[in-house]
Amino acid sequence: MGHTAALVDYILGSRLETIPPEIRHEGKRALVNIVGCTLGGADHEAVEIAIAALGPYAGPPTSGVIGRPERFDPLFASLLNGLSSHVHDYDDTLPKNYIHASSPVASALLAYASVNRVSGRDFLHAFILGFEIISRIGNATYPAHYNAGWHSTGSIGVFGAAVAVGRLLQLDAERMTWAIGLAATQAAGIREMFGSMGKGFHPGSSAQRGYMAALLAQKGFTSGRFPLESPRGFAAVTASSYDLDKLTVDLGRRFELSDNTYKPFPCGIVVHPTIDACIQLREEHRFVADDVAAVELRVAPLVKDLCNKKEISVGLEGKFSIYHAAAIGLGRGRGGLEEFTDAAVNDPALKRIRLLTEAHGDPSIHEDGVVVRVRLKEGGEIGTHLTESLGNLKRPLSDARLEEKFRDQAKVINPAQVDEAIRACWTIDELDDTSRLIAPCIPG
Amino acid sequence: MGHTAALVDYILGSRLETIPPEIRHEGKRALVNIVGCTLGGADHEAVEIAIAALGPYAGPPTSGVIGRPERFDPLFASLLNGLSSHVHDYDDTLPKNYIHASSPVASALLAYASVNRVSGRDFLHAFILGFEIISRIGNATYPAHYNAGWHSTGSIGVFGAAVAVGRLLQLDAERMTWAIGLAATQAAGIREMFGSMGKGFHPGSSAQRGYMAALLAQKGFTSGRFPLESPRGFAAVTASSYDLDKLTVDLGRRFELSDNTYKPFPCGIVVHPTIDACIQLREEHRFVADDVAAVELRVAPLVKDLCNKKEISVGLEGKFSIYHAAAIGLGRGRGGLEEFTDAAVNDPALKRIRLLTEAHGDPSIHEDGVVVRVRLKEGGEIGTHLTESLGNLKRPLSDARLEEKFRDQAKVINPAQVDEAIRACWTIDELDDTSRLIAPCIPG
Repeated sequence: MGHTAALVDYILGSRLETIPPEIRHEGKRALVNIVGCTLGGADHEAVEIAIAALGPYAGPPTSGVIGRPERFDPLFASLLNGLSSHVHDYDDTLPKNYIHASSPVASALLAYASVNRVSGRDFLHAFILGFEIISRIGNATYPAHYNAGWHSTGSIGVFGAAVAVGRLLQLDAERMTWAIGLAATQAAGIREMFGSMGKGFHPGSSAQRGYMAALLAQKGFTSGRFPLESPRGFAAVTASSYDLDKLTVDLGRRFELSDNTYKPFPCGIVVHPTIDACIQLREEHRFVADDVAAVELRVAPLVKDLCNKKEISVGLEGKFSIYHAAAIGLGRGRGGLEEFTDAAVNDPALKRIRLLTEAHGDPSIHEDGVVVRVRLKEGGEIGTHLTESLGNLKRPLSDARLEEKFRDQAKVINPAQVDEAIRACWTIDELDDTSRLIAPCIPG
Repeated sequence: MGHTAALVDYILGSRLETIPPEIRHEGKRALVNIVGCTLGGADHEAVEIAIAALGPYAGPPTSGVIGRPERFDPLFASLLNGLSSHVHDYDDTLPKNYIHASSPVASALLAYASVNRVSGRDFLHAFILGFEIISRIGNATYPAHYNAGWHSTGSIGVFGAAVAVGRLLQLDAERMTWAIGLAATQAAGIREMFGSMGKGFHPGSSAQRGYMAALLAQKGFTSGRFPLESPRGFAAVTASSYDLDKLTVDLGRRFELSDNTYKPFPCGIVVHPTIDACIQLREEHRFVADDVAAVELRVAPLVKDLCNKKEISVGLEGKFSIYHAAAIGLGRGRGGLEEFTDAAVNDPALKRIRLLTEAHGDPSIHEDGVVVRVRLKEGGEIGTHLTESLGNLKRPLSDARLEEKFRDQAKVINPAQVDEAIRACWTIDELDDTSRLIAPCIPG
């Protein structure tokens, strides 16, 4: 049996009850995280522009859009959901292959479930399957695919949307193969877009194209039969080396969701240890921004290379400044969306700490760690050596922390809706209709 | 100046009156060919399926679709135009890089001009520019890009649609750069789709995605600034070797349209010499199908390898059978769409000739040539040695022959509409509004 056929066989035969409870719970955690991120990005300028540019061409407004008052056809809604969810670079990450797998899958499914009655169990199941397929195609083609310059969240995300929607459409084996093929032949997204709106476009476009692939396949639009493994298939075309066995090894026994991570802070992952350590210091020693007299950081040399900007004025620059990272941790004790606005970067209290902070590259420090020393005005030096940053696989965000992250982002809906949406994510497998999750995510 | 910037500079500064008359005429020839092909494919099953699957999600029905009675939004209309135009593998070919460049450009432009008033001059100009950009990106990345398994008509076609629509939208330099960037990051289409509906989907999807890129850029959706040439840009990501200078050498002085070719027969190009030679023999010696007693072909060994099927029953198989090629040339004296239907393949008169035809691979015969020997029942042997097949750069289809090809395909509109549409193509630069070309292409 070919690799695509083996995946199709698994997708069609999978049952939610055979997926371990801890994986189903991780699926819910991923859902809390991605729905929160989607709400957080829904009022971003990129989303407004996409609506202004493409909204006039959207179809019958049958689908809700997470975090938006407008209704559009579900294909365009998929694109918007995906764009919103990734635009702050705050969604989940698979450390194995750097894919943000939840976005393309959830973005398409939330649109699909907005126009079709889908039980919460079926929704969660389709989500877990879509996530699994993305991650496995990512593993099979990593690192060559990513290193070539593909943004895999786009180029591989499309497969997850196709199989997740395809599963809900109950495609048979032949049609599921075509859905995967039509996903493969729409796979796109290059890293040259990093730093522009094009990056956030990728999971949105993947969600839309994957959804389209499933719809086309359902009606009998044919594709090649070996889209992943053939000499002119996805792996060979987009990766100079690959290992197709990773597509299927331990399929149904080992789930990729167990390797998923969630960012505690909406910024470059390499400044996370500094924010984390600074917040810990502040919580332990209970000082305020004004008390800080001097700061010295020792970070991995790469971190200083990437994030050495002190003279900044724009929120986006703050996401990649090790000095701003220290300032928000020490000065505010938090690193939420509001710490990366233009206003935050220009906040005099934060700017003062930023300017008095010194950073040194130190090869003995791992990229996931930091040494922080702080001198307080009222005498006394404090410090810490962090070796595992919050949010990595060894220190995952707690469920409560994921809820907090959701609340921090969900400003476009009211507090009662926030509670309802969070509850719906945690109890998704008990909902008779996924619309009970979607409804509270639409601004009143 | 970077390569993308140089292309943008050219696109913005180009004027139709500085493009040589012979290139403008070639643009019209390409238009006659592609509009005819689009009409020819418009009732194909793949188009029906795409409409059934995606039509319910299309936006306000403002745009006509070539060869179809339905109206859709112009983005979906672009997709359908592109699918129709390529589904019979009958559209134009650039021998330098195997790209079918007219389809993605014309497909998007015809939809755009269906919903916006566009003078015929502007339409022709945008078409020539879009064609030029596709071909140059093709040249710069050929052969590595194609050999990797990309179907460049899809993966590169998207750029042509983006710049052609972008030109009509009068994008400024920054926004034209973004349009090219957003095209680059949507570039897709793999050769694993050959032999399935996925192949025809490529130029359609490219037309749609390129059009989207231009609309997004117009409203300010940003992309990376060096989408073609950067280390994570299109060329580096999709081709193991490339020559960026080909993007700009002699830009505005040498036009790629002068290297375009048009297929005389809707089938694999390697059987074209046989059909061509057999038609010539029949025209010269004035026999009928029944007169043929024996046929011997000497073809390039590759041609026999690829097209050695004699026992066939499906029209699609006829497109790649050297025996069927001889049969239609000798038996009917023509090779139009009707010679590649299931009915034609099962026509007893054609089948008889197919079965009595022998083919031999001969290394002394070039792929563009053939030696045919025919014995007629009423005694006498006739034969010919063809060395340049009709439709290649040295024996281009005449304008009259292109018209004949158009007529052969345009069965979905009535004869008066056919005349009007052909006339509109030849006089496109005199039309005050391109709708005068589009209107007769819509079934009454």
